[in-house]
Amino acid sequence: MPLLTLLTDFGTTDYYVAAVKGTVLRRAPGTVLVDVAHDVAPGDLAAGAFLLAASVPWQPAGAVHLAVVDPGVGSRRRILAARLAKPEAWVVVPDNGLLTHLLEGGLTGDVAVGGVWSVTRGDLFLPGPGSTFHGRDRFAPVAAHLLNGGAAEEIGEAIADPVRLPGEPRLLGSGRLVGSVLHIDRFGNLVTDLPTAWLPDGPCLAAVAGKETSVRASHYRELPTGEPGLLPGSLGTLELALGNGDLARFWQVERGARVAIRWPSDAHSRQGAKEQFGLQ
Amino acid sequence: MPLLTLLTDFGTTDYYVAAVKGTVLRRAPGTVLVDVAHDVAPGDLAAGAFLLAASVPWQPAGAVHLAVVDPGVGSRRRILAARLAKPEAWVVVPDNGLLTHLLEGGLTGDVAVGGVWSVTRGDLFLPGPGSTFHGRDRFAPVAAHLLNGGAAEEIGEAIADPVRLPGEPRLLGSGRLVGSVLHIDRFGNLVTDLPTAWLPDGPCLAAVAGKETSVRASHYRELPTGEPGLLPGSLGTLELALGNGDLARFWQVERGARVAIRWPSDAHSRQGAKEQFGLQ
Amino acid sequence: MPLLTLLTDFGTTDYYVAAVKGTVLRRAPGTVLVDVAHDVAPGDLAAGAFLLAASVPWQPAGAVHLAVVDPGVGSRRRILAARLAKPEAWVVVPDNGLLTHLLEGGLTGDVAVGGVWSVTRGDLFLPGPGSTFHGRDRFAPVAAHLLNGGAAEEIGEAIADPVRLPGEPRLLGSGRLVGSVLHIDRFGNLVTDLPTAWLPDGPCLAAVAGKETSVRASHYRELPTGEPGLLPGSLGTLELALGNGDLARFWQVERGARVAIRWPSDAHSRQGAKEQFGLQ
Repeated sequence: MPLLTLLTDFGTTDYYVAAVKGTVLRRAPGTVLVDVAHDVAPGDLAAGAFLLAASVPWQPAGAVHLAVVDPGVGSRRRILAARLAKPEAWVVVPDNGLLTHLLEGGLTGDVAVGGVWSVTRGDLFLPGPGSTFHGRDRFAPVAAHLLNGGAAEEIGEAIADPVRLPGEPRLLGSGRLVGSVLHIDRFGNLVTDLPTAWLPDGPCLAAVAGKETSVRASHYRELPTGEPGLLPGSLGTLELALGNGDLARFWQVERGARVAIRWPSDAHSRQGAKEQFGLQ
Repeated sequence: MPLLTLLTDFGTTDYYVAAVKGTVLRRAPGTVLVDVAHDVAPGDLAAGAFLLAASVPWQPAGAVHLAVVDPGVGSRRRILAARLAKPEAWVVVPDNGLLTHLLEGGLTGDVAVGGVWSVTRGDLFLPGPGSTFHGRDRFAPVAAHLLNGGAAEEIGEAIADPVRLPGEPRLLGSGRLVGSVLHIDRFGNLVTDLPTAWLPDGPCLAAVAGKETSVRASHYRELPTGEPGLLPGSLGTLELALGNGDLARFWQVERGARVAIRWPSDAHSRQGAKEQFGLQ
Repeated sequence: MPLLTLLTDFGTTDYYVAAVKGTVLRRAPGTVLVDVAHDVAPGDLAAGAFLLAASVPWQPAGAVHLAVVDPGVGSRRRILAARLAKPEAWVVVPDNGLLTHLLEGGLTGDVAVGGVWSVTRGDLFLPGPGSTFHGRDRFAPVAAHLLNGGAAEEIGEAIADPVRLPGEPRLLGSGRLVGSVLHIDRFGNLVTDLPTAWLPDGPCLAAVAGKETSVRASHYRELPTGEPGLLPGSLGTLELALGNGDLARFWQVERGARVAIRWPSDAHSRQGAKEQFGLQ
């Protein structure tokens, strides 16, 4: 059975999510529905782009992923259908940056986009009242078309310029990494955009928002209560966490904060590194 | 496969929703479940009635809609099954007003109720402990009966007096409309009960809670940041919104507030209207 | 179709729940998914254990129940699969106490555990990055194995010492019961661990947190507004509630508070009881 994942900023106190699901099920009966999240802050494109890219790699092959965080609803912004070659999937979004991480190969380089189409076939859409709920009237029918095995070529034209969110570049230099806090999760963990594989084993110093830690761990429980540390996160990127606590609150870090990690370059001995960072 | 939508005030921190779903799936295996909302404020019948009427028109034909906002659980209030002729569906609710908008033809006149039954066949119910969880012990079995293709006549008797919530009447006069804020959504938009089709094109002045706007738009993004305006909402009724913001908070409007819209009557020229409302 | 219920503390603002579901659907296509709750407070094992035991009895036979509240993720705590003989089901959890109530026969004695296995077959697990998301990388594959009809013997070894949460014992004496508030629900009702069947009919006095009531009712609406009372709850245990209000807030009761109920012993006349408790 075809599977649709659904990511929106519609919240859970309105009928909006149910109307999207009902429209999909009317057009593509038998679709299996999986919610990613609906509590994205209203209009928060960075959160939407992160959650979409984080969820996609774990879903079954052939899934359609619909993400509607759409402050421009009703305006002339385009409706996009992106075909993923790896993993095999479709992604349907407004053209406002939600595809950003996927276009860049996913959060850790395991995604490949095979093409992006701008949907132009208006007869596909639902003649719903008003122009304020394209999630129901336009995105859901596009997702249903793809769930039914329809081609993107039938409903749109290929484009080469999907909108991307601005982002600070990541730096990988000699003995240092610089990146950003991509996401702060429910537990207050700081999910960075720095691939775990970029950081050599051994001592290092991670700094964010004027705070720093030289503790490395492999899982949360390994961190003593109240101790911040650096871990390999579950997306393949580095994560900062607090032993038995909420690091974002403790360090007062907000999403987007720059993260810098230093370690001894090859020219230094491990001992030198320890002295450099004042590690035991 | 039969589809059940589920709307409750059970919240998302208890096992209540799962117990209702489990009971439905035990009695009617294979049912597809769609959540409308569970974060309705405890006992908020007006919110429940609105969300039910808002969701129903977008669901597949043949769906069963179960709504349990039920402050009178365990008392002698009736359990109702309403057959909708348009769209084809069943609605199962406590008899406390949740059917109000559906009985009135839906929010924009596209619903027709074919009959209402009061469920009296107690052998249908689950012998669950206590009398405090009819959602699980009574409503879920009634929904499962209908999902299995059972008739309402087999489990109850037709009634003609379902409870209706009190409501302020809508007025459609010469050059004016008066209605209410039916719902404030997650984004702070004010959803009114005034059909978009009742308002002629052209200049008008919309007032609520002592504030007013003469701006009309077709979608949210068209409103400049900080500017309130009137739009055709996604349910077919007029909506008031704030450009890039939360109008309910900005204007301090609560659900139920009266909304008045004035426009130049036929006797006035369009120019006169502009003068009347001080529009440019 | 096999059914999986899912209970976590992952919240609804991350991609975590969707990644678990995607992993299950990749390994066990066609699984029907039912959410119990994801808004358990981070690491709250007592809440997780309660909600799991509360939900299990209402689910279809053959269901697999996955509960991941797992502050020890990545450490050497075991991963358990428990086979329930009554109701027929599997339960997959970290070995940290989530099974407590089920091991004790469920909240009201209607559960029987047939065996508990510690999962040791690492080749079953997903080679996901990091060691911080066993919900996705380990628990989901174990659940999928069982959903596919696999045996626990194939993936682990039987154990006899699953972790149990500490708990205050319940007392059933002559004319008195002592127990605890197991759960405070969304409505502020105090769900106790005292089976309704333990309390004889007739006058009694229930005390918790220095407050007391001698009112008994059969359902919430029977309690006058502002009046606390004792009722038979929907799990088969006694519940304390406030007429048209939130008793936990009104009495400032927290989960775990001791509950004492006294009633006239056989030696007393009913009249004596009334005098004893000052009842009318």
